[in-house]
Amino acid sequence: MDASQHHFVSAQELAERFGGRVDGDPSVRIVRFASLSRAHFGDATFLSHPRFQEQLAHTRASLVILKDPALARQAGLGCTLIQSDDPYLFFAQAAGWLETRTREETVKETVIHGTACIDPSARIGRQVRIAAGAIIGAKVVIGDGSDIGAGCVIDQNCRIGASARLHARVTMAHDCIVGDRVVIHSGAVLGSDGFGYAPRPDRSWLKIPQVGGVVVGNDVEIGANTTIDRGTLDPTIIEDGVKLDNLIQVAHNVTIGRHTAIAGCVGIAGSARIGPYCQIGGAAGILGHLQIAEGCVIGPMSLVMSSITEPGKYVGVYPLQQQADWEKSAAIVRRLPELRRQLKQQGHQEN
Amino acid sequence: MDASQHHFVSAQELAERFGGRVDGDPSVRIVRFASLSRAHFGDATFLSHPRFQEQLAHTRASLVILKDPALARQAGLGCTLIQSDDPYLFFAQAAGWLETRTREETVKETVIHGTACIDPSARIGRQVRIAAGAIIGAKVVIGDGSDIGAGCVIDQNCRIGASARLHARVTMAHDCIVGDRVVIHSGAVLGSDGFGYAPRPDRSWLKIPQVGGVVVGNDVEIGANTTIDRGTLDPTIIEDGVKLDNLIQVAHNVTIGRHTAIAGCVGIAGSARIGPYCQIGGAAGILGHLQIAEGCVIGPMSLVMSSITEPGKYVGVYPLQQQADWEKSAAIVRRLPELRRQLKQQGHQEN
Amino acid sequence: MDASQHHFVSAQELAERFGGRVDGDPSVRIVRFASLSRAHFGDATFLSHPRFQEQLAHTRASLVILKDPALARQAGLGCTLIQSDDPYLFFAQAAGWLETRTREETVKETVIHGTACIDPSARIGRQVRIAAGAIIGAKVVIGDGSDIGAGCVIDQNCRIGASARLHARVTMAHDCIVGDRVVIHSGAVLGSDGFGYAPRPDRSWLKIPQVGGVVVGNDVEIGANTTIDRGTLDPTIIEDGVKLDNLIQVAHNVTIGRHTAIAGCVGIAGSARIGPYCQIGGAAGILGHLQIAEGCVIGPMSLVMSSITEPGKYVGVYPLQQQADWEKSAAIVRRLPELRRQLKQQGHQEN
Repeated sequence: MDASQHHFVSAQELAERFGGRVDGDPSVRIVRFASLSRAHFGDATFLSHPRFQEQLAHTRASLVILKDPALARQAGLGCTLIQSDDPYLFFAQAAGWLETRTREETVKETVIHGTACIDPSARIGRQVRIAAGAIIGAKVVIGDGSDIGAGCVIDQNCRIGASARLHARVTMAHDCIVGDRVVIHSGAVLGSDGFGYAPRPDRSWLKIPQVGGVVVGNDVEIGANTTIDRGTLDPTIIEDGVKLDNLIQVAHNVTIGRHTAIAGCVGIAGSARIGPYCQIGGAAGILGHLQIAEGCVIGPMSLVMSSITEPGKYVGVYPLQQQADWEKSAAIVRRLPELRRQLKQQGHQEN
Repeated sequence: MDASQHHFVSAQELAERFGGRVDGDPSVRIVRFASLSRAHFGDATFLSHPRFQEQLAHTRASLVILKDPALARQAGLGCTLIQSDDPYLFFAQAAGWLETRTREETVKETVIHGTACIDPSARIGRQVRIAAGAIIGAKVVIGDGSDIGAGCVIDQNCRIGASARLHARVTMAHDCIVGDRVVIHSGAVLGSDGFGYAPRPDRSWLKIPQVGGVVVGNDVEIGANTTIDRGTLDPTIIEDGVKLDNLIQVAHNVTIGRHTAIAGCVGIAGSARIGPYCQIGGAAGILGHLQIAEGCVIGPMSLVMSSITEPGKYVGVYPLQQQADWEKSAAIVRRLPELRRQLKQQGHQEN
Repeated sequence: MDASQHHFVSAQELAERFGGRVDGDPSVRIVRFASLSRAHFGDATFLSHPRFQEQLAHTRASLVILKDPALARQAGLGCTLIQSDDPYLFFAQAAGWLETRTREETVKETVIHGTACIDPSARIGRQVRIAAGAIIGAKVVIGDGSDIGAGCVIDQNCRIGASARLHARVTMAHDCIVGDRVVIHSGAVLGSDGFGYAPRPDRSWLKIPQVGGVVVGNDVEIGANTTIDRGTLDPTIIEDGVKLDNLIQVAHNVTIGRHTAIAGCVGIAGSARIGPYCQIGGAAGILGHLQIAEGCVIGPMSLVMSSITEPGKYVGVYPLQQQADWEKSAAIVRRLPELRRQLKQQGHQEN
């Protein structure tokens, strides 16, 4: 959203809402947040770490949130300040609130772009925005206050909760459900067929029809170009508060427990059950038909090959070396069984 | 597709087509398949494993396929049954057939949505469906009975066989060919440029034009957001019956042999030749300019660094450990050459 | 682009522009390049490697570029030849030039397809092509000679340089900038939100708003379905001449230095800084908040876990083995600390 569509908030109101003390003109009007170095007139910014301190003197922001206002005054900064114990948290909360508030004040009624294509049987809530080129199928339900981005395709019987935000070019295949306040980024696909085949006698593959859907809870965020397959019979399930980064593959019949966060490029095979409150590092892999206990942390590029029943941090990744060193160590890794035999033999010779 | 668009089939007809014996009312009408727990009136379901047996008593399905009808009667189930030696196979075949049959009965003539954009020089077969917002370029040929999903872009000179199904938002760049009964899931891209550059003297890169296309055989399935690059001069080739899962990268000039199945997140580098009947595990990598023999099985997240000439199962993945243990083992992996020297020395000292 | 849209060039002109000597009819007219085996009348082809020599006799090309014309004459080839010291480089330069020239001659003025949806406040340069179904937001700027493919979504305040080419279905979220001669392939997403959350006391996640954009320099190429997240406050930066393959994830606040080339399926975590002139192998991973020195080469499927300050080739990948062998070696890898203790003990016993 560009500045022209933003509404204003005063420093005073921000301080009252997010806990800070104003130093300077409390009526200064703020449009949005920006970094110290990029902020302009009408922007708020913040100082969260001493290493950015030298940028204070040069910022053109109208408002700076920081822990110690004296630093700003030393730097000769004349703009309004808000003293806050946690400027980063202040920013996170205030910027998010500002975006929501701007939307609420801008979208007073449902707005459907003239080039969007909405099936007459779809039920669209109040204060919904549907952008150019979006395609909404039969019997789709969209809750109040949701945004459907340009070029999205929402196939029949899908249900989208309230205050959801689908960015441009999201695809939801038929019979998928997402909850309230869900955010889905561009290029994500929900409800593609699970990868299920049975071998035929001639070694070709018989496709197993995939008739389950995808059910996504509330407050879930799904990254760009991430794919979530529909279940074979019952739905693939993403529980409340799960955060999925970009380019993640979630196979059919998977369950991801509430508030689990998964970094980019992770692949999760069919029927895996990931517990709540887990953190999965980037490009990790989870094999199928296994379970991961609540609160596990899986390292980046590590492969989970069997169930994990104990919470903890798990890693499995070959250490990086200069190529010449790696060639030597990798050659020995292949011959480890032999090496162990030698070691055992020498042990026996001594006894 | 929702129930309203489905046509009915009787239990009797299913039993005759897919080999089973009806126990109960043979005229009961079936719309689709669902799981034991989610099936409603008009649905068929099946019992394929004893662990679901307790769900039998509570199913609301109109038809249950199972091996031993006595189990259902013990559970007090009053609906129609079909006795089948392999209920899962029965389901796979019957559900697939039901979907095809419903389409055939629904789509009696070619239907092009008013918002689709078709070049006048394109040749569209009979009983083709082209959904909203699809864009079909010059001289494209689409075979009889094919579906082009919403928002697909099929660029000029592409050819699509008969009874193919492109889900929403598939992209085919110019001069790509796919065969009969091919299924392509949303977000897949066929015919993007191969990643080819020659280094210039100033260390910048000269792009090598990519003028080959992509040729995909019959009965191939391509997953969501999978990418298949066009060849440099000759086409990248996906042979008959190949199954590709989601988020796979197939680089330029690759050949994938017939009926090979590749799980999600795999990356295949340029000019690799993968034999027929292989199975490649999720997130595996295949380096360029190598060959993999017929019938090889590659483990998940394993990297094939040189040609494989013998069929077999191949794996290369660091075992997962608790982080503290991994730190110790990984530190030693780096120092394996030193360890082996020590071992040799000790061996020599003894002699 | 199909032949009908190509303009012709003579063998003579090609030889003069790209340094070669014509042998045969210098006026022969060339439309495009193709492989020896697939070339037709009107095509140019080339012989770059002796292993293709036997195809010379059967080519139907109108022009062959090769190092030694005598080979062609021995093979009985009657078509025009160009003698060049580096036929592959000749092809790369000539085919690229031919494509650019064809575009320049075809697109004399800006052409916007009737189904494209352009905000009135967008500024579109000269000789721009905007294809069917493209959606251009408020205040977008598109430079002279650029192509916007079918179904692209360019959100508000984006800026695209001159002679850029966005293939079909590219997404640029608001406030992203790409330079001149940038090529972006289908399905790529620029400007999705970075993956940033702060933990709340109840173990749910507070979203950190992402208000930085993406800034892409000149001569950058971005592969199909690759995703580049916007920065949290300041932009994610892709410098001039960078080449990104398909399905790459670039997280928020990353910087990639000029002319670095990154192969498919690589994941780069937040705030990583990759130096110029690096080469990153396919499916490699780069952890966040680290730096990689200029000119480093990272092996495929290798994980960079800490900063690299010395140029060099780095690898970290478990060697591929037959499964039975891997099971033995991997079991020992887990027990390496124990093995080393044994080795030390035996050493001490000897002394």
